Amino acid sequence: MDLRRIARETCDTLVNYLTYQAFRVILDQLQETNPAQHIWLQHFSARYSFQYSSDYLQALYKEKPDLALRIMTVRAALVEDMADSLPEMSRTSINQANMALRRTMLEHLTQMSDPISEEESPPS
Amino acid sequence: MDLRRIARETCDTLVNYLTYQAFRVILDQLQETNPAQHIWLQHFSARYSFQYSSDYLQALYKEKPDLALRIMTVRAALVEDMADSLPEMSRTSINQANMALRRTMLEHLTQMSDPISEEESPPS
Repeated sequence: MDLRRIARETCDTLVNYLTYQAFRVILDQLQETNPAQHIWLQHFSARYSFQYSSDYLQALYKEKPDLALRIMTVRAALVEDMADSLPEMSRTSINQANMALRRTMLEHLTQMSDPISEEESPPS
Repeated sequence: MDLRRIARETCDTLVNYLTYQAFRVILDQLQETNPAQHIWLQHFSARYSFQYSSDYLQALYKEKPDLALRIMTVRAALVEDMADSLPEMSRTSINQANMALRRTMLEHLTQMSDPISEEESPPS
């Protein structure tokens, strides 16, 4: 298990995802302040994947540098605000998700067990 | 900007992504220990999206409960090992990515400026 590689790739995924969230923040702002630019940004962004957020921002910069800089500023603010809560939140999320799945699996097993096998081993 | 929603969605993305990484860890292990199951897991998983990791694990549990539990155990271990380094790593990643982009943008601007405008404002 290559933990260094996994950590690096997880971080890249976080950067790409926060870029997507920053794009959505800017898109929401434009809907109120500049509907024409809102539609433009929506159409432009549909041509790119946020899995390659760096390529997306470079392409956006060539077309509308102000929008690229706004998205970069928002993603920096997002990571600043949220980073410290990520360890606790991600641990809790995974543990809760694992518990919920184990519960579902247990219920599935209980439903599978037939009355005969239950009679074979009554509580003593 | 709805920070609570963004934090929750970011966490969900992390959980899904670490499930994918845990799947890859188990896939690598199976390649060495059980090639037939390696191929089976690869084919099975291609039918699902890790964007819905909970649905994936439930479906996997119905077919091969031991593999579902192994992936759940590995993703819990991954978040345990990595969670504390996420704040620093994600901040650094975003700040470095922003700096790299600003550098590229600056170079782009420098290349755009023509010699005439450079002659107009020589260093004093």
